[in-house]
Amino acid sequence: MADTVTITFEPDGKTVEGPPQSILELSRGAGITLRSECGGSGICGKCRVQITKSYGTIAPPTQKEAKQLTAAELAGGLRLACQARVLSGKATVYVLPESRTAAREISGTALEGNVALAPAVQKVRCHLFPPTLEDTRPDLERLVSALPFVPSGIPLPVLSVLPDTLRSAGWDVTAVIWNDRLLTVEAGDTTTEQYGVAIDIGSSKIICHLVDLATGKTLAAEHAENPQIMYGEDVVSRITFAAKDNGNLYRLRYLVVETVNTLIAKMCGATEISKDRIYEIVFDGNTVMHHLFLGITPKYIGVSPFLPGHSAPVSYPAKELGLAINPEGRVTSLPLIAGYVGSDAVADLMLTKIYERQECSLVIDIGTNSELMLGNSDKIVVCSAPSGPSFEGAQISSGMKAVGGAIESVKIEDGKVSYTTIGNGKPKGICGSGIIDLVASLFSAGIITKNGKFANLANPRIVTDGVPKFIVAPKEETESGREITVTEKDINEFLLAKGSLRAGWTILAEKYGIDPKNLDRVYLAGSFGTHINIGNAMALELLPQVPPDRVVFAGETAVGGSQLALLSVHEREAIRSVLTKVQYVELSVEKSFNREYLRSIPISPEAAQRRS
Amino acid sequence: MADTVTITFEPDGKTVEGPPQSILELSRGAGITLRSECGGSGICGKCRVQITKSYGTIAPPTQKEAKQLTAAELAGGLRLACQARVLSGKATVYVLPESRTAAREISGTALEGNVALAPAVQKVRCHLFPPTLEDTRPDLERLVSALPFVPSGIPLPVLSVLPDTLRSAGWDVTAVIWNDRLLTVEAGDTTTEQYGVAIDIGSSKIICHLVDLATGKTLAAEHAENPQIMYGEDVVSRITFAAKDNGNLYRLRYLVVETVNTLIAKMCGATEISKDRIYEIVFDGNTVMHHLFLGITPKYIGVSPFLPGHSAPVSYPAKELGLAINPEGRVTSLPLIAGYVGSDAVADLMLTKIYERQECSLVIDIGTNSELMLGNSDKIVVCSAPSGPSFEGAQISSGMKAVGGAIESVKIEDGKVSYTTIGNGKPKGICGSGIIDLVASLFSAGIITKNGKFANLANPRIVTDGVPKFIVAPKEETESGREITVTEKDINEFLLAKGSLRAGWTILAEKYGIDPKNLDRVYLAGSFGTHINIGNAMALELLPQVPPDRVVFAGETAVGGSQLALLSVHEREAIRSVLTKVQYVELSVEKSFNREYLRSIPISPEAAQRRS
Repeated sequence: MADTVTITFEPDGKTVEGPPQSILELSRGAGITLRSECGGSGICGKCRVQITKSYGTIAPPTQKEAKQLTAAELAGGLRLACQARVLSGKATVYVLPESRTAAREISGTALEGNVALAPAVQKVRCHLFPPTLEDTRPDLERLVSALPFVPSGIPLPVLSVLPDTLRSAGWDVTAVIWNDRLLTVEAGDTTTEQYGVAIDIGSSKIICHLVDLATGKTLAAEHAENPQIMYGEDVVSRITFAAKDNGNLYRLRYLVVETVNTLIAKMCGATEISKDRIYEIVFDGNTVMHHLFLGITPKYIGVSPFLPGHSAPVSYPAKELGLAINPEGRVTSLPLIAGYVGSDAVADLMLTKIYERQECSLVIDIGTNSELMLGNSDKIVVCSAPSGPSFEGAQISSGMKAVGGAIESVKIEDGKVSYTTIGNGKPKGICGSGIIDLVASLFSAGIITKNGKFANLANPRIVTDGVPKFIVAPKEETESGREITVTEKDINEFLLAKGSLRAGWTILAEKYGIDPKNLDRVYLAGSFGTHINIGNAMALELLPQVPPDRVVFAGETAVGGSQLALLSVHEREAIRSVLTKVQYVELSVEKSFNREYLRSIPISPEAAQRRS
Repeated sequence: MADTVTITFEPDGKTVEGPPQSILELSRGAGITLRSECGGSGICGKCRVQITKSYGTIAPPTQKEAKQLTAAELAGGLRLACQARVLSGKATVYVLPESRTAAREISGTALEGNVALAPAVQKVRCHLFPPTLEDTRPDLERLVSALPFVPSGIPLPVLSVLPDTLRSAGWDVTAVIWNDRLLTVEAGDTTTEQYGVAIDIGSSKIICHLVDLATGKTLAAEHAENPQIMYGEDVVSRITFAAKDNGNLYRLRYLVVETVNTLIAKMCGATEISKDRIYEIVFDGNTVMHHLFLGITPKYIGVSPFLPGHSAPVSYPAKELGLAINPEGRVTSLPLIAGYVGSDAVADLMLTKIYERQECSLVIDIGTNSELMLGNSDKIVVCSAPSGPSFEGAQISSGMKAVGGAIESVKIEDGKVSYTTIGNGKPKGICGSGIIDLVASLFSAGIITKNGKFANLANPRIVTDGVPKFIVAPKEETESGREITVTEKDINEFLLAKGSLRAGWTILAEKYGIDPKNLDRVYLAGSFGTHINIGNAMALELLPQVPPDRVVFAGETAVGGSQLALLSVHEREAIRSVLTKVQYVELSVEKSFNREYLRSIPISPEAAQRRS
């Protein structure tokens, strides 16, 4: 009889018992929702926990852990929950905040990566009877008779060599099918080798997952900066560049195609999988990234009325797009919603599945253009709120991205400013989540007015030579030796952005017919959402003021949406059918938008009071 | 009130009256079936008649006639019946034998080129509402909403430029649809410009017709020698060459592709039609020609059990095949039946429509491999009879193709030999129809035995120095000054070929369950069939001995089959459904074949008696 093992999860204080298994598996029994984007295969490195006490045996670190964790981290007891198997006795583990799918202060429904496998790609092993003078069925018809249905087509290069393929394989082949088409025919039994790639093409980052379509597991993950960045950080500059001439459009397209090919090659190298066994790519991205990836002119997304060339999902052969998988493999897009509500936002819908529930939810995916989606199984309204880049640290004098050295949280208590930085090093600047905390704290400390002006320039942390600035970190504390400060203009940038968001969800709630306070759930999607202080975000009405346990951190959903589609045609059908019910709201033509926007910019003392 | 005109057709002696109209139109009233492959548009030049008397006004020759007829021919009264309009009075015209769809001695049903237009290609003019902030449907979805159905796909190059196309056209475009797909989108109204090309890829000749899909008319016709001939006259040598390496296969393929492109360019030049307005090619050919055209290895057609790579019709984009029509246009094949029963034979079925009638018919398409098809609306059995090249004049010592100077008919009366040649010049050799006459005459004159041996070497026209030879044309009559003769070996070649044919239709009739004498119709398809003397062919049992009025000359059907398919998807569906009922009989595995073959080689005195 196997031992029973006991694990206590801290800081939750929950204890569970069970047979020897991984910490990830045990965490599920404790109701702790750990991130496991790779399905627990040790690839994504997101389920980090620290073993703080152990009165028994825990299996030593696996090779995958050795790859994801530094020697120092391993020495400090850091492990991947999916890899670390508790073999006997008791242990206590500390769950790192970033390893949770939902932050600790809120308890939401964890997003399940589980999906019933129904990939568009299928393999059928075919043992054919060799032809005789009595059985003169042609080669293709002989093959088709062994398939569960008559495919709607076969690529010419495959048909051209089919007679040789069948004979050299001794009439024992594997047919590769994609939806109702015959993609290719392979010698022998290759049914265990069927792979796909999910890609999220972000404006700044491209993420690829190599997925085993037979098991649903993520076998490898790679990412790289989007090299289009050299032609502009934001989508508008890329539209401008692409619109100049077709050469530019193709340059932008090939930059991404080459990057994707490199990432795929890396994943194939790491897993020793042949790229010819990859039969489908599903990709998502904002509407501009989508257009550039397919080589469709994005020109008219940039001008009113901001139209995409198309919105329904499309699929083309990999060879036509220059993607280095099986040349007959397919490259399939997720559907789009509008010029500024792309398939990355569709991925949010696919993962939060707000369309399955009777209760009304809101999804907020914050970026330069923030996508807002609100609704339930009956109706969904969506809009794009032009929130500007301030949440990403841009257009803020000391702003920076959420990377090492960024001030990510700020508190002001009794006039004393304290902060934390990403990586705990000396501060270099302030990122979006830090700005939210800062503005909320400045307001509740009475340092700024509801309009974001300094209430009293005599405050000792305000320097007034030139433009008045509030010192967040004095020069002796910072990396550069220069002060990290915030100006009224910075605060105004932020207030305009939050005004846009607030106006967006207020109008959506109005359209739907619900008081935002009564929303059943508020999902924060995208990388930004997972770092913010919910209390402060609500105090500033960046989010509707729902009970905190209704806020769910959905994380970076985008590649997950592509992955879901890759694994299941039912997921594709479901989202297509959902999108027929989605009503896109163009804020710029909403009569109430300007009024609501102006009303949304100042901080509401009542709201701040309620949340503080 | 318009005049009434009166025309007498000779040698039929039939007179008709009617309002002023073309001779072709008048011929219909007289029950005279003139050839009009181009639908009476003056292109094919097949409806030649000679005006022998005129007591009224006939419109002068048109430009099209000037192109089809030489000045001498025009001066001699030769006209195209479709072009020559009788304006007033009376006239007598002589119908040239070759202008008839059925030879005069037999009266069969003329093949009708008429078909209800239902091409796979359709054009839909779309006046779209320009987008506004209130109507933000994406470009493709905006276009699709103006179509009668949601197309199943759009080529990426078309999607890529769709936003520009729609705007530069001021939202007034024409969508080109092929079956359920959107092929391309054109600025403005192009609905009157929709063309297709029908191609017959023969082993020796490639024939192209440019067809107006909106009217069904043939606008131009071109043909050229199949340049693959440099790698062998017969299909077997081309299979051998292609099977050696893929370079050879592609060389054969591109020879035909280039020829077809040249023919298409000529037709486009003559008609001032842009190749971009040609949206579909439908082609037929024997199975080897079909494979070579698509680049499919024909290797296994050459070895038992003689299998094609596939038989169902396929369709690929023109750009993938290198064919110079609209790059998104489609290249579609007619279905195949077997390795030696190709889509040229399928075209025979499509034009004779034996599958529509309750009565049982036989179609014979004579070549090196002759295709035989027998049946009715319930059941059709087909086979390929390896008849060898003797009907084409090959492997016969004085044999030649049916071109100028070939002896095409022979009579022996009272020991006197008379003959006619093609073009009426001095004889150069003897072609297939001449050989049939010769063998039949030699036998009925008692000069050869039923086994094809000379009965009496003392016959004055038999020279016996060396191999005994019968002198058909003495040297003083011939072009070269050398005798045109026939040997026992030549006669044997012919008897083997006719034995194969006779065994073929005998076995098919047996399979079907009909006495060949009771066949309702016997169609002679292909160029060879139209020149032979039916009486002699029956005397030798090349054809079943049915009443002569049941024999129909179907002519060169092949390109007609492609043209029918081009003009109507219903014709495509009909023939696909027919082919599911077609039973292919592989003669080499038929137990009765050898017995029947041996029995079929000698001349049957009874049969010869019956027919003579």
